[in-house]
Amino acid sequence: MSLPAKTRLLDTINTPADLKSRSREDLKQLADELRAEVIDAVSGTGGHLGAGLGVVELTLAIHAIFDTPSDKLIFDVGHQCYPHKILTGRKDRIRTLRQGGGLSGFTKRDESEYDPFGAAHASTSISAGLGFAKSRDLQERDNKVVCVIGDGAMSAGMAYEAMNNAGSDLSDMLVILNDNDMSIAPPVGAMSHYLSKLVSSRSYRGLRKFAKSIAKPIGLESQARKAEEYLRGFAMGGTMFEELGFYYVGPIDGHDLDVLLPVLENCKAMETGPVLLHVVTQKGKGYEPAENSADKYHGVAKFNVVTGEQQKSAGGPPAYTKVFAKALIEEARRDAKIVGITAAMPGGTGMDLFEQEFPERMFDVGIAEQHAVTFAAGLAADGMKPFAAIYSTFLQRGYDQVVHDVAIQRLPVRFAIDRAGLVGADGPTHAGSFDIGFLGALPGMVCMAAADEAELVNMVRTAVEIDDRPSAFRYPRGNGVGIELPAQPTALEIGKGRIVREGSTIALLSFGARLQECRKAAEMLAAQGLSCTVADARFAKPLDEELVNRLARDHEVLLTVEEGSRGGFGAFVLHHLAETNAFDNGLKVRTLHLPDIFQDQDKPEIMYAQAGLDAQSIATRAIDALGRGDMREIERFASA
Amino acid sequence: MSLPAKTRLLDTINTPADLKSRSREDLKQLADELRAEVIDAVSGTGGHLGAGLGVVELTLAIHAIFDTPSDKLIFDVGHQCYPHKILTGRKDRIRTLRQGGGLSGFTKRDESEYDPFGAAHASTSISAGLGFAKSRDLQERDNKVVCVIGDGAMSAGMAYEAMNNAGSDLSDMLVILNDNDMSIAPPVGAMSHYLSKLVSSRSYRGLRKFAKSIAKPIGLESQARKAEEYLRGFAMGGTMFEELGFYYVGPIDGHDLDVLLPVLENCKAMETGPVLLHVVTQKGKGYEPAENSADKYHGVAKFNVVTGEQQKSAGGPPAYTKVFAKALIEEARRDAKIVGITAAMPGGTGMDLFEQEFPERMFDVGIAEQHAVTFAAGLAADGMKPFAAIYSTFLQRGYDQVVHDVAIQRLPVRFAIDRAGLVGADGPTHAGSFDIGFLGALPGMVCMAAADEAELVNMVRTAVEIDDRPSAFRYPRGNGVGIELPAQPTALEIGKGRIVREGSTIALLSFGARLQECRKAAEMLAAQGLSCTVADARFAKPLDEELVNRLARDHEVLLTVEEGSRGGFGAFVLHHLAETNAFDNGLKVRTLHLPDIFQDQDKPEIMYAQAGLDAQSIATRAIDALGRGDMREIERFASA
Repeated sequence: MSLPAKTRLLDTINTPADLKSRSREDLKQLADELRAEVIDAVSGTGGHLGAGLGVVELTLAIHAIFDTPSDKLIFDVGHQCYPHKILTGRKDRIRTLRQGGGLSGFTKRDESEYDPFGAAHASTSISAGLGFAKSRDLQERDNKVVCVIGDGAMSAGMAYEAMNNAGSDLSDMLVILNDNDMSIAPPVGAMSHYLSKLVSSRSYRGLRKFAKSIAKPIGLESQARKAEEYLRGFAMGGTMFEELGFYYVGPIDGHDLDVLLPVLENCKAMETGPVLLHVVTQKGKGYEPAENSADKYHGVAKFNVVTGEQQKSAGGPPAYTKVFAKALIEEARRDAKIVGITAAMPGGTGMDLFEQEFPERMFDVGIAEQHAVTFAAGLAADGMKPFAAIYSTFLQRGYDQVVHDVAIQRLPVRFAIDRAGLVGADGPTHAGSFDIGFLGALPGMVCMAAADEAELVNMVRTAVEIDDRPSAFRYPRGNGVGIELPAQPTALEIGKGRIVREGSTIALLSFGARLQECRKAAEMLAAQGLSCTVADARFAKPLDEELVNRLARDHEVLLTVEEGSRGGFGAFVLHHLAETNAFDNGLKVRTLHLPDIFQDQDKPEIMYAQAGLDAQSIATRAIDALGRGDMREIERFASA
Repeated sequence: MSLPAKTRLLDTINTPADLKSRSREDLKQLADELRAEVIDAVSGTGGHLGAGLGVVELTLAIHAIFDTPSDKLIFDVGHQCYPHKILTGRKDRIRTLRQGGGLSGFTKRDESEYDPFGAAHASTSISAGLGFAKSRDLQERDNKVVCVIGDGAMSAGMAYEAMNNAGSDLSDMLVILNDNDMSIAPPVGAMSHYLSKLVSSRSYRGLRKFAKSIAKPIGLESQARKAEEYLRGFAMGGTMFEELGFYYVGPIDGHDLDVLLPVLENCKAMETGPVLLHVVTQKGKGYEPAENSADKYHGVAKFNVVTGEQQKSAGGPPAYTKVFAKALIEEARRDAKIVGITAAMPGGTGMDLFEQEFPERMFDVGIAEQHAVTFAAGLAADGMKPFAAIYSTFLQRGYDQVVHDVAIQRLPVRFAIDRAGLVGADGPTHAGSFDIGFLGALPGMVCMAAADEAELVNMVRTAVEIDDRPSAFRYPRGNGVGIELPAQPTALEIGKGRIVREGSTIALLSFGARLQECRKAAEMLAAQGLSCTVADARFAKPLDEELVNRLARDHEVLLTVEEGSRGGFGAFVLHHLAETNAFDNGLKVRTLHLPDIFQDQDKPEIMYAQAGLDAQSIATRAIDALGRGDMREIERFASA
């Protein structure tokens, strides 16, 4: 398919209401223009491309048939929402996607009334949709509720919990299962096989022709009953959804507006409780480079529209993710008990590399963090050494399992916590802000954070050796600092930090990758004649109390620095200082942590500066705490 | 059925190995004796009765057929494990169940090699079992893995995640679905309807006779293939499980050893990947008072075996749960937008009372905390005022949803957090230890704790009025303090605490229900000539900084006291004090919180004393921090 060069028709669409009067031919033309616009916009911003391209026709058809925003359209995950944003008054800002101050890369309530429920994590849409449906019923309104959820998201227990509830509750709602046989990686699990079976069945293939011939709008005079009879012809299997109380329709071709429009029209007219419409789409549809790539251009850098060639990253030090994966592979060569677990993020966590070497020892359990954690606990209970590689933000999904199945039983599950701290373009939903606190509160847990990639290698080694209790090590998104990796990894002494710079007046105690900024801050302070010690705590738990005591005793000011929220590392240091009356000698303490707001997306370095966690801010806070100079001096320094 | 007076045969069973040589008639006699023993033991200790009575035959049959502990038997929830404990070397201690220093009321790894994986929260067994199965395969052992999970636990997404993974993984494991159509309350949701349909189908009823006639052991020489063919006759439906990749067998009568034993024998011989055996049992089976009661004696106090009459509680003040429910009902009468949500705990949370008056406005979503939270978020997004009543320990299951769907979107979901703090006989798995920290870390969240039942009533009112952001209020298990409830509830000023006793030397700042102990501690201290201020913080977030400043400025010692872990209220106070250099005048601070261990079950007052959170401990810590007297004086005081 060749892309239209202009967006003649699309330029006339300011809100979905403008779609109502359009002919079907116009809508087809609009789909082409919308697709071209998405490609062009993302080529300049980078972002999620494949998912949006897969739902161009579906998005257009939903907005043409339903009356958003009074009808509620809830996208699951939300990274497929770029076409939706273009159609709902955000066309002019689409080239600010994922930039600082720009549009979010996900649906977001603050951004538009057409986003009734924001997302970013998977599998929440049916729960939220049922909330909207019950609210509508209680308030005696008659708006429709439409959820669009991918097949990958169906592996999450949360989606099942919602279907289990919706299917017995019987409120009217439409769940559109967008089946592209692909989430970020190919989906796994029995549900995925089941969906494939539905789609590949002879009846579906035969139906595609049949559907076209009978798919005609049934007009305003038609009754819900008639719509139901009509749609019955489309239901080809789907027993599992029917057993869960859903009226199953499909599978239908999600790129064919001649089918989509009348089927949606009829789904809209139905009043039979929850309906599941199974739509088959192709991720990356209509853009050849995306269609032909393995990941369907799931998430891309800026790229050349004609060639599809993505901008290469500037090179530089290896990513933490890759350093982790390689270190774990090295360990696994020496120790057959090491196994790896990912929850649908083999590429993102580096477990795909582990799998290449150890296919039998890597388990991708799907979007299923609760199960991932307890599955790891089971492996540990039987003597294996499981590494559960889960992003900080997604580990929130398995928190009870960390508490109940791992920590209470003191099982040696190793949590490799990627994407700790701020993450940049993905914004607040993906920030890894809370794990230091929520893990550090757990009795028996060992909590580490890597200051650089060499430390990460040693922490992997350390975690291998910790076989009598759970442990966790966190590391940030992005590249390391360029330090040489240890030829032989060394296990760290549990609960021991290290001094990386000796000084006398100010002590900076870093937990994690802000160590580099602390070093820079120390240089700045030294340039002002202020002697500065810099230490790397390595462990938030058990805390290196001796190190803390020493820093407290020998300095006027102690700053803790971490890439996490209040109630984490700094809090643990304060608990200890209070307990030991360490403030008695006039010590001044500041805990530098993420601010008590959800920070919008931007470049990570800008976000950290906003958070007051860059070198300049750290140095300024130190001087401020010291309380020697007058404020003008500090301000002069801060603006230097 | 009359219960045998003696446990003649049972007395000869010390481990499951002793069951191997027994005739089927002996096993039947043993079942009767085992049932009688469970009833007698629980009549003296109180505890979970109905669930254990329902699985007497099943437990006996599993231990007779499988080779525990090398075969792994994993009970889901674990409150049905009393017969299992009696059969696995813990007979002599069975009358210490749930007592301090006694047997846990759940399965527990520390307690026995026959408990390979502990439990207490629902729906973890399949995940853990799959971990054991994969570990076995990797280590090339051939032990069996058997999980026993109730139908109520099947509403949880976690069970689905595990089935989705196990069903495509194809490791051999046996999941026994113990279907008694009853968890704590009657189960809800589409899966529950589906199971009922399987059980009530004519084919099942017809099958019961049929099963008896063909159920015979097939002997050692038989092949897995033969077993499979044999069992095929039992599979009556179960399509949903088959679509999820399980080999479905059942439903069969879980009280009929003539069926259970040969079917289990054959399941053991199968090598066809994961098998789901659907067993139908009756909760409370074989004890008339339990069978005839609505909750099937799910959890009971001590009782009279002959009459079934349970020991009445001593009376006294109303339970917090009931105070909450009544307060919410009052509010809901005035405000039609208030709705209530529970995750399978209508009785435990008091939402059953709410439902009696507002059947359309109460939603029991099943064991599905993830869905519960996001469903509430959807309701809030559409303008309702949802109260999600969830125990502290179970809210851990919905943590990501609290972060991602509620807090980031700043939706006014109200979390009514029951069972906050230590809970007594249910032990560490049910302690509500971590919510202050994990909620207090979230931007925009309002966190309250009720010092007494009157405060709780006012906090319900306060939460109704907080309609621009999420809020949470926590309250303990058990009865209030006997204070008069407000005739008209009053909304509290957000972020403002209160002084309840004025003094000068020591300040006790309480967050939550330890306020009573703080008052007592102040009395004790006053008797020693130490003047004491007692304050009730009411809010951990936003913190009453003015109150904290005042207490810090005007006292030598400041103690924070909370029913939660490190990194919570005390940490937030410390963050603030550090930020404002409040230690400069020599202030001594101690944060009193739960200890950094998982405390075993005991009477709550004993557990709190162990935790150093009773009046005596609080007073002792205050004197110690003050550092005036010599240690002998403190010790004399502490032992007074």
